Amino acid sequence: MEGEFKATDRSTVRRVAERGSHDRARAYAILDEGLVCHVGLTGSEGPVVIPMGYARDGDDLLLHGSVASRLMQRIAAGAEICVGVTLLDALVLARSTFHHSMNYRSVVIFGRGARVDDEAEKRRCLDRLVEHLVPGRSVEARAPNRKELAATLLVRLPLEEASVKIRSGPPSDNHADQGLPIWAGLIPLETTPAAAVPDELNQVQTPAYVANYSRKGG
Amino acid sequence: MEGEFKATDRSTVRRVAERGSHDRARAYAILDEGLVCHVGLTGSEGPVVIPMGYARDGDDLLLHGSVASRLMQRIAAGAEICVGVTLLDALVLARSTFHHSMNYRSVVIFGRGARVDDEAEKRRCLDRLVEHLVPGRSVEARAPNRKELAATLLVRLPLEEASVKIRSGPPSDNHADQGLPIWAGLIPLETTPAAAVPDELNQVQTPAYVANYSRKGG
Repeated sequence: MEGEFKATDRSTVRRVAERGSHDRARAYAILDEGLVCHVGLTGSEGPVVIPMGYARDGDDLLLHGSVASRLMQRIAAGAEICVGVTLLDALVLARSTFHHSMNYRSVVIFGRGARVDDEAEKRRCLDRLVEHLVPGRSVEARAPNRKELAATLLVRLPLEEASVKIRSGPPSDNHADQGLPIWAGLIPLETTPAAAVPDELNQVQTPAYVANYSRKGG
Repeated sequence: MEGEFKATDRSTVRRVAERGSHDRARAYAILDEGLVCHVGLTGSEGPVVIPMGYARDGDDLLLHGSVASRLMQRIAAGAEICVGVTLLDALVLARSTFHHSMNYRSVVIFGRGARVDDEAEKRRCLDRLVEHLVPGRSVEARAPNRKELAATLLVRLPLEEASVKIRSGPPSDNHADQGLPIWAGLIPLETTPAAAVPDELNQVQTPAYVANYSRKGG
């Protein structure tokens, strides 16, 4: 988790540059806390963005989907992709309309994925995906059978070229606006789990990893 | 809010097709509840995905950024873009690893934006963006001055070609797995505002629209 991503033209934050970095540890913390990524690729008619689940596995990002998905097939074939993960932390209410903003932590990754075909490796990656969702779950869930493995396209995207962008802290009002009689500050936003809802046919007591679920990254 | 988007090849959900639609009302509800979108465009080296704030204004999506942003300049110049907004509702814990999933509501929009230059129109759009963030805020915040207006690039993207994809409900376990002694169900996730944090220099009482803030879309 030490060190920096390589800084390339496309992965370098230029606007408000002090918010940007290539810091691996920060990127990994954001990826581990997030649940949904948005994958961009270039289709025949232009850009396409698709939401997906993911997990970080060491220095790779794991993506998966159906073998029947055309977009997933292109991703697995090594199409150039860009993956964004954004965590929203707060609404930033400045005194001026202009300085309204959001506090967020985001990672944008560039690269090409590679298909995972080895069966044992594929099983391990699917466990990682489930663990990322709910830590503790992979030891309990019924493991994939041959048919399910064959129906899943699994892709490993190396975390080599990426940027992190973070806004934090109070509103950045102009000095001249600071005395205005307008409330200014943050409305923090949190992703909170509500009480688990057992399946209709469930006959098992709620396990601790479900009852105590919280989203801090896995 | 009635009717459907035009169904094109790229905007038609094929995988698990019953989850997809072109329903305008559903799309608008998702856009109004969300806060962050991911904008995809094709750069010189391949796809680029950037997180952004946005607001819906009738049948258009509003995007904005700095006039100094190269990507924003390309978006304002009418580059083909794809915009994704995803709301995460629950983690879906099936008995099998294979059927683990997430409940979500997502919109993916395709099109080309057009720059808004008219000053009065630009002011109205910036108010919409602030209102989308915090309803009630735009009447209070200090309006943009000429310099701030000139520093803002504002883009209107027509909501014409878009798809909605929704997963809801319990896990979809295979019949044979339903008797397994494994807990199955949902962990609902909510975006909840925490207590507002006034700015250090704030001398104004917290207004009701801040104190009672909740995220249901505006």
